[in-house]
Amino acid sequence: MIIVLKPDISKKDELAVLKEIKKLGYKPHVMRGVERTVVGAIGDERTHQNLEALNTWPQVEKVMPVQKRYKLTSREAHKGNSTVNVCGNIIGGKKIQIMAGPCSVEDEKQLLTTAHAVKKAGATILRGGAYKPRTSPYEFQGLGVKGLKLLAKARKETGLAIITELLSEQQAELVAEYSDILQIGARNAQNFQLLIAAAKTGKPVLLKRGLSMRIEEWLLAGEYVLANDNANLMFCERGIRTFETYTRNTLDLSTIPIIKKESHCPIVIDPSQGAGRSDLVVAMCKGAVAMGADALLIEVHPNPAEAWSDGAQQLTIEGFAKLMEELKPFIAAAGRE
Amino acid sequence: MIIVLKPDISKKDELAVLKEIKKLGYKPHVMRGVERTVVGAIGDERTHQNLEALNTWPQVEKVMPVQKRYKLTSREAHKGNSTVNVCGNIIGGKKIQIMAGPCSVEDEKQLLTTAHAVKKAGATILRGGAYKPRTSPYEFQGLGVKGLKLLAKARKETGLAIITELLSEQQAELVAEYSDILQIGARNAQNFQLLIAAAKTGKPVLLKRGLSMRIEEWLLAGEYVLANDNANLMFCERGIRTFETYTRNTLDLSTIPIIKKESHCPIVIDPSQGAGRSDLVVAMCKGAVAMGADALLIEVHPNPAEAWSDGAQQLTIEGFAKLMEELKPFIAAAGRE
Amino acid sequence: MIIVLKPDISKKDELAVLKEIKKLGYKPHVMRGVERTVVGAIGDERTHQNLEALNTWPQVEKVMPVQKRYKLTSREAHKGNSTVNVCGNIIGGKKIQIMAGPCSVEDEKQLLTTAHAVKKAGATILRGGAYKPRTSPYEFQGLGVKGLKLLAKARKETGLAIITELLSEQQAELVAEYSDILQIGARNAQNFQLLIAAAKTGKPVLLKRGLSMRIEEWLLAGEYVLANDNANLMFCERGIRTFETYTRNTLDLSTIPIIKKESHCPIVIDPSQGAGRSDLVVAMCKGAVAMGADALLIEVHPNPAEAWSDGAQQLTIEGFAKLMEELKPFIAAAGRE
Amino acid sequence: MIIVLKPDISKKDELAVLKEIKKLGYKPHVMRGVERTVVGAIGDERTHQNLEALNTWPQVEKVMPVQKRYKLTSREAHKGNSTVNVCGNIIGGKKIQIMAGPCSVEDEKQLLTTAHAVKKAGATILRGGAYKPRTSPYEFQGLGVKGLKLLAKARKETGLAIITELLSEQQAELVAEYSDILQIGARNAQNFQLLIAAAKTGKPVLLKRGLSMRIEEWLLAGEYVLANDNANLMFCERGIRTFETYTRNTLDLSTIPIIKKESHCPIVIDPSQGAGRSDLVVAMCKGAVAMGADALLIEVHPNPAEAWSDGAQQLTIEGFAKLMEELKPFIAAAGRE
Repeated sequence: MIIVLKPDISKKDELAVLKEIKKLGYKPHVMRGVERTVVGAIGDERTHQNLEALNTWPQVEKVMPVQKRYKLTSREAHKGNSTVNVCGNIIGGKKIQIMAGPCSVEDEKQLLTTAHAVKKAGATILRGGAYKPRTSPYEFQGLGVKGLKLLAKARKETGLAIITELLSEQQAELVAEYSDILQIGARNAQNFQLLIAAAKTGKPVLLKRGLSMRIEEWLLAGEYVLANDNANLMFCERGIRTFETYTRNTLDLSTIPIIKKESHCPIVIDPSQGAGRSDLVVAMCKGAVAMGADALLIEVHPNPAEAWSDGAQQLTIEGFAKLMEELKPFIAAAGRE
Repeated sequence: MIIVLKPDISKKDELAVLKEIKKLGYKPHVMRGVERTVVGAIGDERTHQNLEALNTWPQVEKVMPVQKRYKLTSREAHKGNSTVNVCGNIIGGKKIQIMAGPCSVEDEKQLLTTAHAVKKAGATILRGGAYKPRTSPYEFQGLGVKGLKLLAKARKETGLAIITELLSEQQAELVAEYSDILQIGARNAQNFQLLIAAAKTGKPVLLKRGLSMRIEEWLLAGEYVLANDNANLMFCERGIRTFETYTRNTLDLSTIPIIKKESHCPIVIDPSQGAGRSDLVVAMCKGAVAMGADALLIEVHPNPAEAWSDGAQQLTIEGFAKLMEELKPFIAAAGRE
Repeated sequence: MIIVLKPDISKKDELAVLKEIKKLGYKPHVMRGVERTVVGAIGDERTHQNLEALNTWPQVEKVMPVQKRYKLTSREAHKGNSTVNVCGNIIGGKKIQIMAGPCSVEDEKQLLTTAHAVKKAGATILRGGAYKPRTSPYEFQGLGVKGLKLLAKARKETGLAIITELLSEQQAELVAEYSDILQIGARNAQNFQLLIAAAKTGKPVLLKRGLSMRIEEWLLAGEYVLANDNANLMFCERGIRTFETYTRNTLDLSTIPIIKKESHCPIVIDPSQGAGRSDLVVAMCKGAVAMGADALLIEVHPNPAEAWSDGAQQLTIEGFAKLMEELKPFIAAAGRE
Repeated sequence: MIIVLKPDISKKDELAVLKEIKKLGYKPHVMRGVERTVVGAIGDERTHQNLEALNTWPQVEKVMPVQKRYKLTSREAHKGNSTVNVCGNIIGGKKIQIMAGPCSVEDEKQLLTTAHAVKKAGATILRGGAYKPRTSPYEFQGLGVKGLKLLAKARKETGLAIITELLSEQQAELVAEYSDILQIGARNAQNFQLLIAAAKTGKPVLLKRGLSMRIEEWLLAGEYVLANDNANLMFCERGIRTFETYTRNTLDLSTIPIIKKESHCPIVIDPSQGAGRSDLVVAMCKGAVAMGADALLIEVHPNPAEAWSDGAQQLTIEGFAKLMEELKPFIAAAGRE
């Protein structure tokens, strides 16, 4: 911690700060500058009391942390890239994995049609929501267990692995039983109890970025997974909330090089949520691939206009097949498969 | 729903839209303007399929909802102001209720000292976190059950009602047993499973606004409480996330007149979270009172610099007593008690 | 400046940083912590080369400034409150000044009717735009010189001082001739050439906060006025841009205590722009007064529905008179006049 | 315009709205829905009075525009892609143009070294600021005319075209004399007087997106250029301001497909400003090329750590040459040159 003192304070006020720093377990180191005196508080910021409350003292101008707050998710903790193995599909390796499927599981025909189609086009993992977090209680909340069973059936028929969202601590075991990756949605990205419950199932966890989550907070939320003995963590950017209203969210593709730099965990991009408009999905997928994404999570529906949720952002089956073709040269350019 | 068609589309493309609108259960009504044709889709937007997916059709320019999506929380549903009775303290009535206490319950002495002091200064409800949602897993997570028991002891000794945060569906019954208001924190404001669990305990629910929650989404999250047969809902503004870095959050005081206009539920202001700096709390409380807040939620600690969480935003006991004095003329000016 | 080095770097890499710090005119001071080494660069950050570019060096983790970047606008530079004298009306003194009038000057009758009415209700300064910055080139751009002349006429008839917006460097002298305060709008808040031109006229300058301007940037923009030998600067909060869509902007009333703490200059609140909705203006004015605003800037129009610009946010003449009555107890509670 | 009336209003209140709509020049068309009555106001929203002020009427719930507000910049106005010819270099054509050079022109050696190097690596246009808009008045403000002359010299020596920023209406002719593209910076993106002055020089204009500018506002600002008889307009995304603090701005690459969809003008990406960190520039350039950008604007400096402005975001000469190599496969994949 660095504590910047106000100019022109008394010796007594300065000493009180130094005394408090010692009391809280740090060693103070004074550095006198041209205009201000700065005190370095030497000690581990993660195991000692936080000094930020010194901000409230009248003689203190500001308190600045020096250390990074995340450990296990950090690149320093693990120099190489981590990979997550989902039923033999490696996420974070040379191959870019495609996760595709409907926003919500609606019925057997809708799911199986989509599953076969996305598999044919090259996807290896099937997405589909059985439990849906909806802004309004009057909107479709998902098929629940029935949806999970349909996903299991689709897995059996197609061999695709399954990713589905976990909404409730109490359903962690249940959802884990039917799926291969547990998705934690943007609205639950700092629901730490849910993160712990998901981690404890032992299944791979895909952690979406919250709507207004800073990179540091996202890495720290991931830390809850790794600290609960689950090493199979993926980060998924799905757009942040900004002032822009043309798109539903602003997809922040800079997270790809940033997560690669700060962390060893794979990074997945969800352009469907990111844009909220299917007509922008193709360009965003190209950008994500070029910038180094490890996987894409894409919403596909046989008839988007009649989808029970988020129809505006789902690709048609034909649109998805075309996208997969168009991505090929960019995957090659990125040196991926 | 209003569907705006693109200019210069064929008759066939227009008919396809009208047909789909009918198929989804609405009656189309065509209106030809100077540049564009607009179709009104007549029907209840809350019980029928959402038409927003028509956005994906090439002949459609945009789709605009007409109805409000919230019902039970809306002013239309209940013309008068609702009040919440917490152990005889009416929130939403003439008296402005003050909820005060430490960010976290730390030990018996800290809690009881604070409780007696805030009571003496005029508070009627004691706040204190037993379960703390912390950005990092390495930060203090709250005393848990031990903290709840200390809150119960403080209630018994002082007669103050208790408000404390609920973090986990699985603890809803437990936390409800020890407290008089269940607080849903900003990070869980769209954790709908938690909202439902809180509603079902029958205890009053204080719903904080999420960090990047629009007013409409906040009212819809409150709708989850009312729709689960719990009428004792309060909204609590605690600052939103913006680009500004001087304050931890940007306290949006305009929510006071807006919630009063759109909803019948009480509105509470939390200036401690809102500012993240105790030196701004006094002015913010004055503004909140003048603008019509029904209650204030204020963090108070015997020694903020050594608080186990969020020390920078907690008032001292003396600071709180002084604040209560300074608020008096503004409470009188607002015609409140 | 504080330079945080990465862990585990070589002695040679550390020395290269120290050498560069010296080359750029600072004295390095090394402080070894538990995990990281931190270097204090001692020297005046405002007169020396900025060290932030050291961020690009692979061995550097981050660079943090220590000093405040603003000088003349800072509270340190001037311990007391500055006041601005506008034709005998003191802004920043005990009396809260009310600036009111139409968004745009439209014609003589509209302006004079409004001027007489706002004067009668207690305003001392008349606002009215002769040059309007409009998002679209097809919207009304203001009456120009004709509008300035009408303002002069209203001043003569009513004795009210005049505030009007300056849009162009080339019109600085002209607009200054007809007005008593030059308003710099939000869209021009970092148009530094315009700020310099306004400062050089010698007229008081009211600097609106930009739509996404941090407090520090606002104070630095004000620094351009003071550094060009014009001490009559007022800051005006008018709402910032956030994700919220219910209001046009989010009025950040916390700027009142913050500007009072960081600067000696008066702070003015514009609730009309801040809300974009006249039905919220009354509550916002009460909050602003309670929190310590030095003046209010309020849009008033004889017939808002037919206003040539921003009708939705203008009060009627009756609404304004009622507001002035309702503010009285709050002005008294704040110890103001 | 669509005017949504409140439920349960009187016939008289409804008629008053219809009368006002007619008075303002529109033809009202009533549509009765299940819960609300909606009135379509038929007429050209761009040439008639804006109806949004009806929002202030107590019987009106909301007013929604139907038409797009931009005309000349819209794809509807010009179905094909526009191109801008800068000294024979076509922007918006098959070849992706690279604009590169230092943030500020510092001296002859710095500029010429960079110019020769970026030309060798494949750039066709040289960037360099002679007038710099700086947040603080104490920071380097650019070399002014001396800088312009150095740019002219670099053009003569290398044959590169020149892009440089225009800060002041009064310098429009001067800057146009020495440059081939006038850059309007983010802080001046809604300085409409500057846009008009730039347009009138006849030189191509590159309009950066403002820090918190919505797409619609950006297109409308561009409309000021086209409406002043200058067809050579390019849009340039350089990052928007969000809550994230890891990067200086959040580069919004979704603007590439959006501008291509809504407008016929070329879109340029500035990853240097967008990231504010040179270590992220390479990935961002790859993404921009893959997503369809027409040109890139990249900051390059012989020694970024000693740059007079924005050192942290400038690439070294070696870094730039390496980037140009790495972009080749992505340019090929995008079917560009």
